[in-house]
Amino acid sequence: MNQTLAIDGTLGSGEQRSGADLRDDLRSDLLRRYRQVRQLTEQLAQPLSPEDQMLQSMPEASPTKWHRAHVTWFFETFLLQPYLSGYCVFDEHFGYLFNSYYEAVGPRQPRPERGLLSRPTAGAVAQYRRYVDAAMTELIGQADPGTLEAIAPLVELGLAHEQQHQELLLTDIKHALAKHPFAPAYLPPQTYTREAAAPMEFVAFEGGIVTIGHDGDGFAFDNEGPQHEVLLRPFRIATRPVTCGEYLAFMEDGGYQRPEFWLSDGWAMVQQEEWQAPLYWSRSPRGSWQIYTLNGRRAVDPAEPVCHVSFYEAAAFAEWAGRRLPTEAEWEHAARSPLRRANGHFLDRLSPHPRCCNTPAGVLQMFGEVWEWTRSAYEPYPGFRPAAGAVGEYNGKFMVSQMVLRGGSCVTPPGHIRPSYRNFFPPAARWQFSGIRLAEDA
Amino acid sequence: MNQTLAIDGTLGSGEQRSGADLRDDLRSDLLRRYRQVRQLTEQLAQPLSPEDQMLQSMPEASPTKWHRAHVTWFFETFLLQPYLSGYCVFDEHFGYLFNSYYEAVGPRQPRPERGLLSRPTAGAVAQYRRYVDAAMTELIGQADPGTLEAIAPLVELGLAHEQQHQELLLTDIKHALAKHPFAPAYLPPQTYTREAAAPMEFVAFEGGIVTIGHDGDGFAFDNEGPQHEVLLRPFRIATRPVTCGEYLAFMEDGGYQRPEFWLSDGWAMVQQEEWQAPLYWSRSPRGSWQIYTLNGRRAVDPAEPVCHVSFYEAAAFAEWAGRRLPTEAEWEHAARSPLRRANGHFLDRLSPHPRCCNTPAGVLQMFGEVWEWTRSAYEPYPGFRPAAGAVGEYNGKFMVSQMVLRGGSCVTPPGHIRPSYRNFFPPAARWQFSGIRLAEDA
Amino acid sequence: MNQTLAIDGTLGSGEQRSGADLRDDLRSDLLRRYRQVRQLTEQLAQPLSPEDQMLQSMPEASPTKWHRAHVTWFFETFLLQPYLSGYCVFDEHFGYLFNSYYEAVGPRQPRPERGLLSRPTAGAVAQYRRYVDAAMTELIGQADPGTLEAIAPLVELGLAHEQQHQELLLTDIKHALAKHPFAPAYLPPQTYTREAAAPMEFVAFEGGIVTIGHDGDGFAFDNEGPQHEVLLRPFRIATRPVTCGEYLAFMEDGGYQRPEFWLSDGWAMVQQEEWQAPLYWSRSPRGSWQIYTLNGRRAVDPAEPVCHVSFYEAAAFAEWAGRRLPTEAEWEHAARSPLRRANGHFLDRLSPHPRCCNTPAGVLQMFGEVWEWTRSAYEPYPGFRPAAGAVGEYNGKFMVSQMVLRGGSCVTPPGHIRPSYRNFFPPAARWQFSGIRLAEDA
Amino acid sequence: MNQTLAIDGTLGSGEQRSGADLRDDLRSDLLRRYRQVRQLTEQLAQPLSPEDQMLQSMPEASPTKWHRAHVTWFFETFLLQPYLSGYCVFDEHFGYLFNSYYEAVGPRQPRPERGLLSRPTAGAVAQYRRYVDAAMTELIGQADPGTLEAIAPLVELGLAHEQQHQELLLTDIKHALAKHPFAPAYLPPQTYTREAAAPMEFVAFEGGIVTIGHDGDGFAFDNEGPQHEVLLRPFRIATRPVTCGEYLAFMEDGGYQRPEFWLSDGWAMVQQEEWQAPLYWSRSPRGSWQIYTLNGRRAVDPAEPVCHVSFYEAAAFAEWAGRRLPTEAEWEHAARSPLRRANGHFLDRLSPHPRCCNTPAGVLQMFGEVWEWTRSAYEPYPGFRPAAGAVGEYNGKFMVSQMVLRGGSCVTPPGHIRPSYRNFFPPAARWQFSGIRLAEDA
Repeated sequence: MNQTLAIDGTLGSGEQRSGADLRDDLRSDLLRRYRQVRQLTEQLAQPLSPEDQMLQSMPEASPTKWHRAHVTWFFETFLLQPYLSGYCVFDEHFGYLFNSYYEAVGPRQPRPERGLLSRPTAGAVAQYRRYVDAAMTELIGQADPGTLEAIAPLVELGLAHEQQHQELLLTDIKHALAKHPFAPAYLPPQTYTREAAAPMEFVAFEGGIVTIGHDGDGFAFDNEGPQHEVLLRPFRIATRPVTCGEYLAFMEDGGYQRPEFWLSDGWAMVQQEEWQAPLYWSRSPRGSWQIYTLNGRRAVDPAEPVCHVSFYEAAAFAEWAGRRLPTEAEWEHAARSPLRRANGHFLDRLSPHPRCCNTPAGVLQMFGEVWEWTRSAYEPYPGFRPAAGAVGEYNGKFMVSQMVLRGGSCVTPPGHIRPSYRNFFPPAARWQFSGIRLAEDA
Repeated sequence: MNQTLAIDGTLGSGEQRSGADLRDDLRSDLLRRYRQVRQLTEQLAQPLSPEDQMLQSMPEASPTKWHRAHVTWFFETFLLQPYLSGYCVFDEHFGYLFNSYYEAVGPRQPRPERGLLSRPTAGAVAQYRRYVDAAMTELIGQADPGTLEAIAPLVELGLAHEQQHQELLLTDIKHALAKHPFAPAYLPPQTYTREAAAPMEFVAFEGGIVTIGHDGDGFAFDNEGPQHEVLLRPFRIATRPVTCGEYLAFMEDGGYQRPEFWLSDGWAMVQQEEWQAPLYWSRSPRGSWQIYTLNGRRAVDPAEPVCHVSFYEAAAFAEWAGRRLPTEAEWEHAARSPLRRANGHFLDRLSPHPRCCNTPAGVLQMFGEVWEWTRSAYEPYPGFRPAAGAVGEYNGKFMVSQMVLRGGSCVTPPGHIRPSYRNFFPPAARWQFSGIRLAEDA
Repeated sequence: MNQTLAIDGTLGSGEQRSGADLRDDLRSDLLRRYRQVRQLTEQLAQPLSPEDQMLQSMPEASPTKWHRAHVTWFFETFLLQPYLSGYCVFDEHFGYLFNSYYEAVGPRQPRPERGLLSRPTAGAVAQYRRYVDAAMTELIGQADPGTLEAIAPLVELGLAHEQQHQELLLTDIKHALAKHPFAPAYLPPQTYTREAAAPMEFVAFEGGIVTIGHDGDGFAFDNEGPQHEVLLRPFRIATRPVTCGEYLAFMEDGGYQRPEFWLSDGWAMVQQEEWQAPLYWSRSPRGSWQIYTLNGRRAVDPAEPVCHVSFYEAAAFAEWAGRRLPTEAEWEHAARSPLRRANGHFLDRLSPHPRCCNTPAGVLQMFGEVWEWTRSAYEPYPGFRPAAGAVGEYNGKFMVSQMVLRGGSCVTPPGHIRPSYRNFFPPAARWQFSGIRLAEDA
Repeated sequence: MNQTLAIDGTLGSGEQRSGADLRDDLRSDLLRRYRQVRQLTEQLAQPLSPEDQMLQSMPEASPTKWHRAHVTWFFETFLLQPYLSGYCVFDEHFGYLFNSYYEAVGPRQPRPERGLLSRPTAGAVAQYRRYVDAAMTELIGQADPGTLEAIAPLVELGLAHEQQHQELLLTDIKHALAKHPFAPAYLPPQTYTREAAAPMEFVAFEGGIVTIGHDGDGFAFDNEGPQHEVLLRPFRIATRPVTCGEYLAFMEDGGYQRPEFWLSDGWAMVQQEEWQAPLYWSRSPRGSWQIYTLNGRRAVDPAEPVCHVSFYEAAAFAEWAGRRLPTEAEWEHAARSPLRRANGHFLDRLSPHPRCCNTPAGVLQMFGEVWEWTRSAYEPYPGFRPAAGAVGEYNGKFMVSQMVLRGGSCVTPPGHIRPSYRNFFPPAARWQFSGIRLAEDA
């Protein structure tokens, strides 16, 4: 429910919070949601030993322990220190250790060296979280009306921020465990029934002047606005993401050997990195394709959406298929249309992997399963201005050299996503659950 | 004349070529322009010794000799081999040596190792050019009507391509000579009168649905189309590019020390590369700022347009100034408007450096002087499809991780530019004559 | 006692082991020493959390946990698998994970990625150690006479090997903790009385034909033999290592700014790495020199031996001092002479740091306190042949591009060192407790 | 003649120069040899175009033009400036450009960027050489007796230095031309008669105390002394260098695939650099081994000495062969013995490549053909002190991390070598004409 509502552009309990006399509802809603989100983080870390939580397998990924502490530091820095009178920071060193990139807040541990932070231990981070949770509970529970109004959007931001790190916690530990020579699983294997995927069809949209971006109702990141009009040409978009089986056909047709499908930078990566398949694919000794999932290694299922491909691979696949990737405006327009039907799955703690789409009609799985690369570079919307102060560093300063992804994935926490939601990664990134949806000119 | 016409979207002699009975005019026009363009290349190389023509100071830049041979190989490969019956290639090795990046044409010398090509010598490259020129003269002069029609657009492409390399020849040799410990000049110093720059003002545009892209009349690169409509919000654009004096004010206000002005990647570059000023600026022993030009080192002139800045610096300057960069659609719309007045200078072989703008009214210097960074990533226009065959590799495969620049510079050959012309470089590139024009929301 | 005896070239209980009827003594001696050595490793790891034990701060250093497992794998691979009938390996994966560099034994985890081994956990490694200890106890305790004879030298080798890793465990964790932004101490601070160092004097040796290398009595590594004669010229050697105070005089005289003192490679390192002082030295906010020790950071004590200097720094200091470093033959000859007096300290688990030498006569501290760089490259002795089989990879294959160090340090386990003992590191290495003893021609 | 005398430890005209009344002979001898050596450099550069003379294919190699200028700068700096009154330097910039590594003389062009020095041109360097030659002729011709005595050893040093660069000029241009995709030849091909190599035998030496190093008669570099005694064990040394045919047997026996033959660093290089054969070997399309020589590419001749191998390959070959490399003392002792017979060839300008040894008796080809890697690291001899002043930087500061090679090669100028001559390169270097002579314990 909550999830569906969120996708329609409102927060689950948006209605209640709007009335002035509903302040207590706001308070209890914030508290409830604070508790839920914070608890989920710890649940995600639970299968991991203190040693696992130290792993940093590349500069772009962070240790589990660091994620747990960083999101906590966010509440401490932007909520508790300014708003909770008499608050003492848990450890004055943590500002240096757990600031991610906020230049305005001060110097910090270099990103590639987060894996060297043996101290604080995983246990000490758990203490830090409890300490901050107690203080946050006090702050939300006892804030006077003016303060409550001031902090509510910051708490929303902090929770949305923590949800982003929940997803990263999983993508990062997946990358790290996969680098271990024996690739241990994060969770025990899950059995499931294999099904055939519904056929891929294309749904037509007329284009014209359409409205894009967040409408201001409920929480959104600053990069989702301002809402604005865009002129679209007629286009068609696929009913579902590309499957592993379809991607295998590309591979078997020489996809990784034929430069004519590739952007120049992409072809350079193929050769430099010796890419032959999506990340986490490997050949079994008998030659069949295996895939490493958070539940361990198993055979590739041709019906499930392909993921862990870079933008380069997505674009090459589209070229091979005689199609193209959608722009982010096309994607959002389609996602807001009544033609959108059943969503995919969001984070399922037992089986965090994209699943086959077998519903036969409508534009499907726009949300959930895999992030979908668009053909749009990550740029500011017309009229965009970052928020004032340190939280203004949240999005705007990354608006170059990245591509927009849309729709969320099987490791995106439920309730986190919206039609206007803009994710972004460099075109070579493969460690997110990133997949492909095709489009074409109508 | 020719230059102004070209900017208005037509080639100098477009009218004549349109009539069927004007084939001879087309032939003689092609021959004349072929000769002019080819001659200019050799004139630009003339001040350089064989040793200078070998220099490759970074992987992105190419030796003069290589430019001279590569543009010749282009005519040999795409014109002479397919269309001139009985043509023998000058040297069968040259395909390997002087193919830039056409995967469809075969393997080639790695780009960072072009500086290791001592053979062929500069003299042998001159021979190669004369050999191909003779064959091209024969081809154009004697082609039957059908062939003439087929080759005319390819000759246009070859000439436009050679003009691009004329500009690169100058930017690349500038980079190489500046790396020499004594920074020899490419040309003797020029005296000139210093003037004050006209004040920077902002001209308003209403926005709405505007038409962008090449209209199909006269030559254009494939990336300039299809022509299409874009929805613009009201905006204002500066009357002229930012000057060195204005940029110095940014520097003196801590521009290179304050992260709040910078995109995250840009700030990382500032620190990694220890940028303190535009490329080619250095402090004299007495502390004043000097600039290295193709005419040698001299004092910075505060009135002339700042150039050799990266996109990161352009964006940081705009942020500091409380403005922003224009999008490429805004830029093109302004450039097509009747408010556009006097242009800047294009390639002047005696004094290839941007000059002060002192005309007091209208949107000025949109063309010439400096390439202007836009806030737009280099992406395909709606409906874009690359040309078929190897020449289709010309533009489309670079459409990622680059930013669009508009307007041409003081080293762009006259007649080369158009309002729809899209140049593109990675955001960190500084060795082009790239400058800044500000814009803002209206 | 044991320690002194060992330095004189015999193992503590060498006498007893030589008689045939003393087999039980041999057995119990091996068992006792096996237990002692194995226990010390665990004691050294004890102050470290599971997270600390994961740290790998550079490719040359290994995680604590890896050291603990690798030395155990050595016993499993070279003793238990060949000699204990019915032995089952603890985990078949461990051969891949914990082989250091034995090509003959098979492939292995790349050295720079040992820090990615979150599994097995520190706890699982403890289990592995107990499992192997039980089997080793069984093997030593119950071996028949022939087997006992065969395994005794391998057990000796395994114990000497583990002692080497005890030292590395400390130098590696020191490096890792020092990289933490707050440089936590491995052990609590220790108070101690500061004393003045005895003056440095030079003791003369006549040279001539002297005997160098291990005499075959008691355990030694293969690189210590064959024993052979060397022709020495008369020389003098310093009575004690160089102190921090003496090294500070070099620094204050521009030691790190004046190329004339440096080997060419050394000067390149000074500039590239921006060396200004020994490793672990830093300036306090008030400008005085601080040193990071395993007991935490404190002021530099001018009387204590300088350590954590590279060969380059040792050679530059000697050049500045108008002296030179001793050759390894000179060093060994002096160390075997009756002029050698009191030794320095070996591993003291409470205060692992070199101490001031204040005994006033004789050649002092040849053993213990700091490893002393010699002017000798690490080369095979005349007639050297490595042992057959995998253990032959122990020393010989490293005999290039390294310099010999002699004498052991304050983190070398007691009983481990001998006059013939040859340690070796690349000339730029600084993370060992490496110091300087001067010599000169007589 | 001259050549044989030089090998016996005296300079060609040593006798004449010793008497005081023979000053005019000294003068004319110096002048004659100055002219010869200087002329040879220009002859070696003659086949190369200005562009060829710019090539720098790796940081360790220098452009031909740079060699020509650097050796000239040496005379200008160490002879003309101090000793020729009224001398004006040719160009004050050249000190920066053409200083190789003399810290005492001032800053200089970074070594890896010598290839960026398009100015001065090859022609200007020729002028520089003539200018300095005229001044040197004046200095030598007119120096008063005291000055003549002072400059004579410096002129000798300058000539020996230029001869070293003659060899480097050839090895460096070979490396650069081989990097060109079509590997042009430096000289036209030479036909020659293939012969069988004499069988490799081993000649025994008794060892004992032997004298090593330069005896002070005639010119030598400072690193060849002081002469001193060394104690050798009995050994045998091969009668000739290893041939290509013998090396092929090693390759065919899995030499590059079997780690057991290799030093650890060597094996790492094999894998990192994918070494499969000596430098400049390649397989023809039909699978046979080709070799690139200064006379172009041709089939490998199994009878000729193998060259362009690293120390690592030399040591691995010796290990495979069940032998070892000689130490430098063994080598020099053998080279000084009456058992030494016919030498190999030194620099032959028509055919600079090592030749087959087919003389049937004695220790052969110790001098000429290929530099022979020894098992000795490059260290100071006992009592070594570098010369005072800048020329003291000539040798001593490189005495670490390099291995000694002995005997000269087919590109060493005649008259340059001596039994005490010590060449040195890092163990991975392959671009010198470096080969293998085996030894073993007697």
